[in-house]
Amino acid sequence: MVTVAVDTGGADLGPAEVAAGATAAAAGGAIEVLLYGPAAEIGEVGPGVTVIDAPVSIAKASDPAHAVRSTPDASIVRAAKAVANGDAQALVSGGSTGSALAAGLFNVRRDRGIYRPALALPLPMLDGPPVLLLDVGANVNCRPEHLVQFAHMGSAFAHAVLGREHPRVALLSNGEEPNKGTPDLVFVYEQLVGSAGTGLNFVGNIEGTQITDGVADVVVMDGFIGNITLKLIEGVSDRTLRGVQDAARSSPRAKLGGWLLAPAMRRLRDDVDPEQPGGAYLLGLRRLGVVAHGRFTRRGFQRAIEVAAHGVEEDVISAMRSALAAAGALRTPAAGGEEEDGD
Amino acid sequence: MVTVAVDTGGADLGPAEVAAGATAAAAGGAIEVLLYGPAAEIGEVGPGVTVIDAPVSIAKASDPAHAVRSTPDASIVRAAKAVANGDAQALVSGGSTGSALAAGLFNVRRDRGIYRPALALPLPMLDGPPVLLLDVGANVNCRPEHLVQFAHMGSAFAHAVLGREHPRVALLSNGEEPNKGTPDLVFVYEQLVGSAGTGLNFVGNIEGTQITDGVADVVVMDGFIGNITLKLIEGVSDRTLRGVQDAARSSPRAKLGGWLLAPAMRRLRDDVDPEQPGGAYLLGLRRLGVVAHGRFTRRGFQRAIEVAAHGVEEDVISAMRSALAAAGALRTPAAGGEEEDGD
Repeated sequence: MVTVAVDTGGADLGPAEVAAGATAAAAGGAIEVLLYGPAAEIGEVGPGVTVIDAPVSIAKASDPAHAVRSTPDASIVRAAKAVANGDAQALVSGGSTGSALAAGLFNVRRDRGIYRPALALPLPMLDGPPVLLLDVGANVNCRPEHLVQFAHMGSAFAHAVLGREHPRVALLSNGEEPNKGTPDLVFVYEQLVGSAGTGLNFVGNIEGTQITDGVADVVVMDGFIGNITLKLIEGVSDRTLRGVQDAARSSPRAKLGGWLLAPAMRRLRDDVDPEQPGGAYLLGLRRLGVVAHGRFTRRGFQRAIEVAAHGVEEDVISAMRSALAAAGALRTPAAGGEEEDGD
Repeated sequence: MVTVAVDTGGADLGPAEVAAGATAAAAGGAIEVLLYGPAAEIGEVGPGVTVIDAPVSIAKASDPAHAVRSTPDASIVRAAKAVANGDAQALVSGGSTGSALAAGLFNVRRDRGIYRPALALPLPMLDGPPVLLLDVGANVNCRPEHLVQFAHMGSAFAHAVLGREHPRVALLSNGEEPNKGTPDLVFVYEQLVGSAGTGLNFVGNIEGTQITDGVADVVVMDGFIGNITLKLIEGVSDRTLRGVQDAARSSPRAKLGGWLLAPAMRRLRDDVDPEQPGGAYLLGLRRLGVVAHGRFTRRGFQRAIEVAAHGVEEDVISAMRSALAAAGALRTPAAGGEEEDGD
C-alpha cells in the first residue's frame, strides 16, 4: 500500500474534481490518498481517501516561496509536511508549480547531494513513447553541475518509472557537435561523455527539431530554456491544429472533408493527451513529487496520483541516488557548500 | 537601380537554381545582380544579371571563419568584397549561414557602434503578418547590450522593410513580469523600458506560447535560444502536420476526408511558405545581407534578392543607425573596446 498526499489547491475545476480523481486512483485498493483542501468544497469521497480540512490555498500567491514560509496551514504546505514526516510517501499538487516547488523544497527538502530539484515532464509524442524533458522550469539559472545531475536523475527516472531500458539521454543545444552551445554546455557535454561506463547512455547534443523525432528518451536543458521549449511546443501545435480546423471551414468541400476526418483527428489529439503523463515530476527531493496541470480534469489527477504511487513502488528515489553516486555526480560539501533554496 | 551581389554556393538545387531566381528578380528592370559562382554550372542568365566565374565554394566548410580568411577566391568572399567596395549595395547568400556571416563580418564589416550583427528571421504566421525573430543564431553568447541593440535594429528593420508602423518589440522570457528571466534579461528589460520616448515601442516580456499569437512584431532573444526556438517551431509544425496526414490515412472514411480537405491544406502550407520572406536578414553590417535557406527553390532566391533590394531602397541601414543613436544604444570605444569577430 502506497500513501500519496494530495493538495486540491490550484485545480481550475475546483477541489471536488481533484477529489474525484483521488477516489478513482484509490478505487483499485493499492493506493491510499490523504486529501488536503477545503472539506466543504470537496464533498463525498470514496474508500481509501481521507479528507483533511485545509481551506487555505496559496495556489495563486504571486511570491510562492514567501507564501509557503508564511502560511503553514496552506493545503500544499500541510500536504508536503505529511510527506516530510512519513505519513505519505509522495506528493501530488495541482499547482501552482511555484508553490509546490517551494513547499517541497522547504518541507520535504532536497535529497542528500542534490544541488537543485528539477521539474521533469514526459512530453506525449504523436508516434511513440513520451520524451522526458528536464528541467522545464524549476531553475532559471543553472550551473553545469546542475545539468549533469539532471541528466542522471532523468535517466534513472526514465528507467524506473517510464520503463525504458538504457534510456538515451541528450543535451539540447544549437547543433550536434560537441563544441556547440555555450561554454557551460560544452563543459556539461564533456562531463556526460566522461560518465560513460557508470550506466548513463549519453547520446550527445540534439537540436530543437530533434526533440519530437524520438532520437532521445531524456532531453536535458536549463529551466529557462525548458520553460520556453514547453510553451513553444504547446503554442505551435495548438496553432497548427487550429490552422487545420480553419482550413476545414474554408469551403463546402473542405467542410465535408473535415467532418469525415473528425474521428481520426480526435484520436490524434488523444495521442498527445497532456493528462496521460499526470503532470511534471519534481525530482531531487527526499520523496517524489508530481505537479499536475491546473487545467486537468479528474482523469489527469487520477493519473498524477497513480504515477506518484508507481514511482514509490519502483523506488525511483533510490534509483536516482545510486545513479548519481555511481557517476560521482553528488554534491560534496567541499564542492558546493550550502546551496540557496530556489531562484 | 539597386545592385545586389549574390553567391550561388550553398543552394541544394545547385547554382543554376539561384541563377534562375536572379534572372526573375532582375526581370523587372529595377535590380541588377552580380552573380558569383561556377559559370559552367550557372548556364544562361537573363538581362540584368552578370555572372562572375567563382568556382570555389566554402558553403560546406566546417570552420567558416577560417575558410573565409583562408579562401579569398571563394564565391561568398568575392560577393562580400563586391559589397564592401561599393560594386553592390547588398549581399545575398544561399548559405551556409556561418560562411555568409563570416564573409560579411570580415569584408562588409560591422557598422559603426554595433557590437555584433544579428540574424533576423520574419517567421510566417498562419493568420497574420510575419513576426521578426532575432537573433536566430549568429551569436550563441550575448551580453545585455547586444540584446538591447537587437531590439532597436529589429524595430528599425520592421518599420523600414516590413512596413510596420510603431513595431511592437518584445523580449522572449519565461513569464511576462519584468523580474522574469535571467539577471541579464531583467537588465535588458530595464534598458528597453528606459528607451521609451526614443521611438522604441517596447511591449515587455512574452512567453513561448505568445510568439505565434501576434502580440509582438519583433521578438528579441539571444542566438542560442533563437536557434532552438526556430528549430522547435519547424519540428513541431512539421510533426503536427504529419500527424494530420497520418490521421487522414487511418481509415477509408478518413482517407476520403483527407482527399476533400487537401486543397485547403495546400493553402494552409502556402500561408507558412518559408520562401516568402526570402530568408534571414543579416543586420548590423555596413550593408544589408540576406541569407536564403539552402533548400530554397528559384522563387525563394528571387524573394531574397528582391527583399535585399527593397531594404536598400528604404535605406534600412540609416534607419537602424538613427534608431540606435536616438536611444543612446551605440557602442562607444570607452564602453566596449575592440570587439572580437563572432563566437
